[in-house]
Parts: sequence; structure tokens; C-alpha cells
Amino acid sequence: MVVSPRSVPDLRSLAHVVVIGGGFAGVAVAKGLADRNVRVTIIDQHNFHTFQPLLYQVATAGLEPADVAFPIRTIFGHAKNVRFRHGRVRSVDQSRNVVMLADGSQIDYDHLVIATGAVAAFFGVPGASQFAMPLYTLSDARRLRNRLLLILEETEVRGDASPLTFVVVGGGPTGVETSGALTELIQIAIKRDGLRLDPARIRVVLVDMAPRLLTAFPLRASDYAKRRLESSGVEVQFGRSVVEIDRHSIHFDDGDRIECAAVIWAAGVSAGDALPQDLTATAGPGGRVRVGGDLRLLDSDDVWAVGDAAAVPLKDGVFCAQLAPVAIQSGRHCAAQILRVVNGESTTPFRYHDKGIMATIGRNAAVAELPHGVVVKGRLGWLAWLGLHLWYLVGFRNRLRVLINWTWRYFDWPSGPRLIVADAETVD
Amino acid sequence: MVVSPRSVPDLRSLAHVVVIGGGFAGVAVAKGLADRNVRVTIIDQHNFHTFQPLLYQVATAGLEPADVAFPIRTIFGHAKNVRFRHGRVRSVDQSRNVVMLADGSQIDYDHLVIATGAVAAFFGVPGASQFAMPLYTLSDARRLRNRLLLILEETEVRGDASPLTFVVVGGGPTGVETSGALTELIQIAIKRDGLRLDPARIRVVLVDMAPRLLTAFPLRASDYAKRRLESSGVEVQFGRSVVEIDRHSIHFDDGDRIECAAVIWAAGVSAGDALPQDLTATAGPGGRVRVGGDLRLLDSDDVWAVGDAAAVPLKDGVFCAQLAPVAIQSGRHCAAQILRVVNGESTTPFRYHDKGIMATIGRNAAVAELPHGVVVKGRLGWLAWLGLHLWYLVGFRNRLRVLINWTWRYFDWPSGPRLIVADAETVD
Repeated sequence: MVVSPRSVPDLRSLAHVVVIGGGFAGVAVAKGLADRNVRVTIIDQHNFHTFQPLLYQVATAGLEPADVAFPIRTIFGHAKNVRFRHGRVRSVDQSRNVVMLADGSQIDYDHLVIATGAVAAFFGVPGASQFAMPLYTLSDARRLRNRLLLILEETEVRGDASPLTFVVVGGGPTGVETSGALTELIQIAIKRDGLRLDPARIRVVLVDMAPRLLTAFPLRASDYAKRRLESSGVEVQFGRSVVEIDRHSIHFDDGDRIECAAVIWAAGVSAGDALPQDLTATAGPGGRVRVGGDLRLLDSDDVWAVGDAAAVPLKDGVFCAQLAPVAIQSGRHCAAQILRVVNGESTTPFRYHDKGIMATIGRNAAVAELPHGVVVKGRLGWLAWLGLHLWYLVGFRNRLRVLINWTWRYFDWPSGPRLIVADAETVD
Repeated sequence: MVVSPRSVPDLRSLAHVVVIGGGFAGVAVAKGLADRNVRVTIIDQHNFHTFQPLLYQVATAGLEPADVAFPIRTIFGHAKNVRFRHGRVRSVDQSRNVVMLADGSQIDYDHLVIATGAVAAFFGVPGASQFAMPLYTLSDARRLRNRLLLILEETEVRGDASPLTFVVVGGGPTGVETSGALTELIQIAIKRDGLRLDPARIRVVLVDMAPRLLTAFPLRASDYAKRRLESSGVEVQFGRSVVEIDRHSIHFDDGDRIECAAVIWAAGVSAGDALPQDLTATAGPGGRVRVGGDLRLLDSDDVWAVGDAAAVPLKDGVFCAQLAPVAIQSGRHCAAQILRVVNGESTTPFRYHDKGIMATIGRNAAVAELPHGVVVKGRLGWLAWLGLHLWYLVGFRNRLRVLINWTWRYFDWPSGPRLIVADAETVD
């Protein structure tokens, strides 16, 4: 092979920071430490960083997996002191400062950053983990897309008059965005792909326990989201508590059930189930790790936690929500504090800068809450949402491709990547 | 749902043409019959058409699956008389004019077109079907890419000095293109992604039984391909006959073996193994179905065969090669002949218009043989290859995305979709 190997300076004398997880938080930590006087190993079971806010677009065939994923190696290809390790962390031994990987390897650390994110939480609902489809990882999104498209094909084969119901559990941003995008997918499949389905017999039902959508937003944003979803054909049902899911239906606590072809699970996440084994930490809400103001674990001076994995203090015993901006900001802060500790300085507490929250409901419709309770909605909200997401996507090529895909979709051109690409080769 | 169903005119009185397979040939048949006085059902086990000539780019992480695939429904969304059926054909009953699907459905036909293509042929080499990786379907390409990228990660974990060998079997266009692109992938992974591998210990070996590459091309094209491959670091070995493949090595008939991390199989295809069961047909070379000049099966007046599945007559007992242009031209001719038969006219024989063959060897290097023995090579050949492939890609969006991806690659920008996205969630 005619390749020059990169020159690798001797970094062994530097403190070793091990970051577990290549999501928003872990990447922000490693970026903050790139080309500084530490050496960094970032470990992830996937070789790519996922832009989670757009996974629902992959699940509904609006975007491709490669549009929302970016190789972690490529992000840090320029940084000589950052190394990527592809692998799954099994456990942590804080007494020996060692991380154990599933392949048997051990990695020593001077500082350890827990950026393991969260996984879908099924809250012990019988059948949920088996039959409901979560939407938290890129594999989840691909699987869900294949399933949705296959269901549409199978329904056509059964005959024009076959009823078809999809149920989305959870009225947060993921549930709202997914149900809105799902109705768009079905409309495109019928109008553009000539799928012979009877629109009057297709239902997309969004259920939530709460009495309104998007509970983190002001009431008028919730009302707007509900109106927009309903006008695009989504049925919204409140006060619905799921007690069981089986292959063909979802059951509620009032004895009611809905027969459905698929249940999409957007009801919540658990940080605890994503943590390495044997981590000594104080559990906070949602299984998150309790941390001090500087984001170090309580009672630890070399283990830190950031992003969804951490109960990041907001103020007075209140914690930050599990949002991408919190992950990014806490990651940056953690990197700065590790450098302070390595340089013998004292740490400073994390302060969250709230720039607002936003959710999209479909083409041309989004809601955003800016600081001071300002709510932006409709086309302006959608454009703001689009611009912000493009800005934060890693890699210019990804941004360009997403922009192209969205422009296409916006103008309703009769083309789109509605592909069923599973690892399994055949259908029956 | 607020969707208007497409108006479906009564087509039942028209002759029903069933096309098995949505590759180049099957799509060409259905396109030729779109909006004519027949009704058409095109059946495929995948819901997409695959642009096979670029699969090696997907396998080597240069392109994404969605760049080379296009939903069959979308191709025919405008044609009221063409219907797509997602399913796998099990068998054919010519006495009852019925096609049986794996899901138990039966579909009647007036005319049946066999456009089932071909599958990888392992020629009975022990271990080949289990351990060698073919490159003929989109799933093959995805699987191969995941495997190649995982091998690179695993080799880094084992340590800088670990040797690493890939063997490509077959010196036809697929083998030449794949081995060239594989060396580029490895170079990018080391230079851009900071993968710590020793280039001097990495081998890409291309083996073939024949004494030269690209045997369908003139000798000087073969020589050029060999020189270019070797200058990019591929070892080319001729007169190599594979007798066995196991998990860690490939064995040759002279007792020699090469230890390797992966064997990529580009040694040939079989049409016979892709045919529906119970088809009554005369077998030709490579398991292909013998057809008359009008592309009807010998001794049949309502079953046709096109593309890779058919032994398409060229002249004087010589058959056309299994190439995309033959598939497209034979598909078009078949459609025209079916219309002639339906309209009570007599059929005309197929004539292949040879516009040349081409293969790419890497960035900036390709060979093309034009009619009258004209050979174009180097950068001009590469540009011709690129333009032609862009032209034949289905869908403007696919063309645009492929153009963007290639432009990126050409200028060696440090970005690329080197993602390991398997259905399985974790690595160990």
C-alpha cells in the first residue's frame, strides 16, 4: 500500500481521558479536549455519531441513515491526541481506574467521562419491549422504516378496503414529529407511488397519558401542535395509559384496546440502563447519575457525567431536561473542567444557557419556545427549526444532502428514498 | 387521512403481462408497456430497483444504498396500467398460466416475462458460499461494507503491526473495480480517519484463473488495468484456481494458501439458481434460459425471458454477455414484441446494438472499449464512465447525490459515509 502513516507524537506522558459514548455530549467533551495537553480515547459501540433529532425523518423515509450519521473517526481525524475505540463498554472499575470492554480489553484512565446517553424505557409494560418499536438509535430508525413500508405493501396485497392503524405512544417532540411525518409518508406512498390503499381506512393515533402534547412547551404551543396534527389526519388521544401491547393491538387501563399494525414507542428514556456495570454513582431522576456543579460524580474526583446520562443541575434541586443543547453545553463544560483539574486549577460550576426548545409537526409547521416565553410557530417556526438543525448537523456534506432532501420534499417532487433495505434478503 | 385515491380505470379487459424481476431488464419491459393497451404487474422481492454497476461503491463506502436504489413504485407511479407487487415468486405453472408467490398468492398471466437476473455462483468451491462475500445485491454490498470497516477497526485494536490481507476473487469488471476502490477506502481510513494501521502490512490481492484481467476487453485495456491497479497497491495474481475457502484463508489448487481477513467473491454468476421453480425451459450457458430471436422461450408463445436470465442470441450460436445494456435493450425489445402479439402482429428478432463496454479502476482511471475496437483510458475514460453511469441512474435526485459524493471523493475532502450500520445493535 502506498500510504504515509500519520506521525504519532509521544502522548504517553499526558493524562488519559476516556470518554464513553459518541453522542452530542461525548463528542463535545472530546472536541473540547482536542489538541490540548491530555490524550483522549472516545469509545462507542457504533463507529458513527448520530444526529438524534432527525431520526424520525429516517424512520419515515424522508432522510437516509447517512444523512444523520457521521463517522466519529472523521470528526477527530485532525486531532492527534484523540483516538477512537470501536467497542462496547461492559463495566468500570473505579478502584483501579480501568474500563472493561466486551471484547475483554481493558483501558486505563486518569479521567473518565460517562456520556452513555439513554435507552428507550418501556416502564415494565408487558409486551412493549417485544412488540413496540422505539426510535432512539439509527438501527431503531432503519428497522422502523422497513417495518412501516412493509406494512403498507402487505396492506395493499390484502386488498383496497383493508383497515390499517398505527399507534404512536408519547406526545413529546419525538411522538409529535413521528406521527406528523408518518401521515406525510402515507400520503406520498398513495399519491406518488400508486399504493392502492383507502385513505379513509388508515388511522394514525397518537396517545399520551398527559392532557396535552409537548408538556415542556407553553400551552398555546401544545394547542397549535394538536390542531396541526389533527388537520394532517392524526387522531390525538389524551389520558391514555398503556397497560399491554401484543402483536396486533395495544391495551389501555380503561379496558379499551386499539387493533393496530404497529406501535411506535416514544414514551420516554432511561439513562440507568445505558450505564456501564459496576459504576458507583448516586442515582437521580430517570436513572441519571447525580453530579456536582462541576459535573463530577458526587464523591469522585476523576469520574464525570454529561448529557442524557447525567442529572445536570439547573437550579435549586431542579435538573436540566434531556435535550441536545444540554448535552452539548455540559460536554463543553466538562472538557474545560478536566483541563482545569489537569492544570491544577479549581473547577467552576456549570450554567445552562437556555436558547429555547423546538419541535416540528410537518412540512411548513413547527413550534419553538424562545427565552422569555416567546413562541414562534407555523412557517417561520419551521424555517427556524430547519436552519438550526442544518447548522448543528456534523459535516458539510451531511448538511448539503439534508438540504437537498428537504428541498425535494418541500416541493413534493415525486422522488424519495422509500427503500426497504433490511439485512434479511427476502420477503415471503 | 386527507388523501384522494388515484382513479383506477377498469383494466380488466386488457391482456395481463406479469414481469418477474425489477432489475434493468424487468424495468425496461414494464416501461415499454406503460400506458399501452395491456396491464402489467411487476413482481420483485425488493421494493426497489438496484443500479448494480455501482454496488462496489456502496461496498467500499463511496456511495450510500439510497444512491444506487430507487423504489419501483416511484418509477411507475405515473403509469395507471403498471402495478408493483412486493413478493417473492416461488414457482410458475405454465399449463394454467399462473405464478405462485411465497406468501401463497397466485397471479394469472396472459404473458409472462422472466427477468429474474442471476445470483452469485460459487461453482461448488467448498466454503465459498459460507465464507466468501459476494457483491451482487444491495444487501451484499451493505454487508460487505460493514464487514470491511469492522475488520479495519479490529485490526487497529490488535495493534499497529498486525498484518491484514483482503483477497478479491475474479478479474472481471466487478473484481477490478472493487479491489481498486478497496485500496482507496483503506488509504482514506488511514489518512483521514486516523486509523492506526501500517500500510506496509496491508495487502489487497486480486486473483483470477485467467492470464489477464477484463478478458472481455482488448489486451491493451487489460494491461492498462493491471498497471493501474498495481500502482495503487493491488497485487494481481493470475492462473490462480481456488479450491477451498475457510474462515481465515483461501486455498489454491497448487497447495498454496493466503491467510486473509475476508474473501470478496466476484468470480461469476448463475442465472439458473434465480429462476422460478417448475419453469419449463431449455437451459443455455450459465443456467440461462434459451430463447428464440423474439425473446420467447423455445416452444412457448406466452413466456419470455430477458436480461441476465436469458441466453440472448447475438449471432450464429453466440450469446450476448450478461451486461446492463443487453438487459435494457432486450427488455425494450420484449415489450415491443408483446405489444405486437397482443395486436395480432408477427414478432421481429432482437438485434443487440453494441455501444461498448467499460470498467473503472479508481479515481481518474477507467477503460472503455468503444465499437470498432477503439479503447479509451485514463482520465478521459473515467469521465466517460462517470457521465454514462450518471445518465443511466434512475431519478434526478439519485444522480445529484452521486455527483455530489463523487465530487467530494474526487477532491479528497475529509468526509465520507464510512458508517457501520448493521441491523444488529452492538459489537463485542
